Amino acid sequence: MHQTFDAALGINLLHANQAGADHNRAHFDEWGIACFNVMSSPGAGKTAILERTLAVLTAEYKIAVIEGDMTTELDADRLRKYNVPVIAINTGRSCHLDSKMVAGGIHTLAHEYNPSEIDLVLVENVGNLVCPAEFEVGEHLKIALLSITEGEDKPLKYPVMFQEADCLLITKIDLAPYLDVDVDRIVANVRQMNPHVTIIVVSAKTGEGLEAWFDWVRSQIHHLSKSPHQLSTVGEKAVALG
Amino acid sequence: MHQTFDAALGINLLHANQAGADHNRAHFDEWGIACFNVMSSPGAGKTAILERTLAVLTAEYKIAVIEGDMTTELDADRLRKYNVPVIAINTGRSCHLDSKMVAGGIHTLAHEYNPSEIDLVLVENVGNLVCPAEFEVGEHLKIALLSITEGEDKPLKYPVMFQEADCLLITKIDLAPYLDVDVDRIVANVRQMNPHVTIIVVSAKTGEGLEAWFDWVRSQIHHLSKSPHQLSTVGEKAVALG
Repeated sequence: MHQTFDAALGINLLHANQAGADHNRAHFDEWGIACFNVMSSPGAGKTAILERTLAVLTAEYKIAVIEGDMTTELDADRLRKYNVPVIAINTGRSCHLDSKMVAGGIHTLAHEYNPSEIDLVLVENVGNLVCPAEFEVGEHLKIALLSITEGEDKPLKYPVMFQEADCLLITKIDLAPYLDVDVDRIVANVRQMNPHVTIIVVSAKTGEGLEAWFDWVRSQIHHLSKSPHQLSTVGEKAVALG
Repeated sequence: MHQTFDAALGINLLHANQAGADHNRAHFDEWGIACFNVMSSPGAGKTAILERTLAVLTAEYKIAVIEGDMTTELDADRLRKYNVPVIAINTGRSCHLDSKMVAGGIHTLAHEYNPSEIDLVLVENVGNLVCPAEFEVGEHLKIALLSITEGEDKPLKYPVMFQEADCLLITKIDLAPYLDVDVDRIVANVRQMNPHVTIIVVSAKTGEGLEAWFDWVRSQIHHLSKSPHQLSTVGEKAVALG
């Protein structure tokens, strides 16, 4: 559920959401947690990438997941297999997570676990290439995914997501031989929207590019943990085209 | 741009949108035009299917397109090659077409062409599996697309789109050999949400299933044109699993 375009009202809603996001981020900073907001179209592979990420990085970090879906806990259940805290949020008819919903998730997390022991919270947003990009939830960094099956033109047609992203994962590269798609053209279109975003080309199926992604996650956690009171101002964008 | 979940306000917005949609549909009915609202995630292949559709059906019907995109006229330009009227609507930051935007498109159409000569208006919505399903624009029938690359679980996770659809095109079936996807499972999940929806499995690349889709379009236009004053009440859902 969402309103039709109304600039005045929209700004007020975003303003209220931003205040909630800043509050959430203050909690994360207080507990020394890095928070990433993971966003994409439906089916670009967010959950598959998180599965691969948890399989490797839970050996190095204490990770929790806040899992947003309109209905069902299908994705939450997939990630619970990695023995990490997974807080499921059903957004009902809402097309994105907002800071208030995530505040509820943080509340649950702080009640059921010791948040000071957690290093990283991965927020998996509702599958939607438009709306989640406008609603901060308290993250330090935004991760966007674009599947190569979605076509070369998407960064131009859905600019906000690509402008806002700190890291873009171009997913399903294993399908490249079967598609009429030019990955260099995707990269060029992304750069047109956001010259400094980190771009990593990956396949959750073959594992291609995942080490570059894990290294990026490690470097950001390291970066953030060194500056606990400046967590929300780091986000310097490295370039690691894998 | 859209608001966070607010049931009371949301209902008012939908009510206002519905009144506009009814007004648009009254225009279509007056002119004897059938209107289809074509919706899906980004990159599911809406424009590719419309290209294939225009290539064949413009020999039989006078067709016009209302093309919604946040920014750019990339898709509109692809469809203009088929020598049909294409009205491009840029939604800006809005994640869906609403009835007011489409009213503007209808106004342009009526000014620049003779609407009584048009048989079919295809509305291509913004790529988004969530929001467009809630905002009628004056269509008689809703067409949803789901690419097999998006995975089997999408009908369960994004139920509104599948509940609302009159016809579902399962697209990119040519990629089935390269994916771990069970198309029967997709169909079963769709049926769980909407037992009577027409489901047609297609590939814009190989042409598989397109004749079944064209036949469905033909039958709906025929059906609608026979009952000009009941255009919005027909929509009996045939079952043509191709």
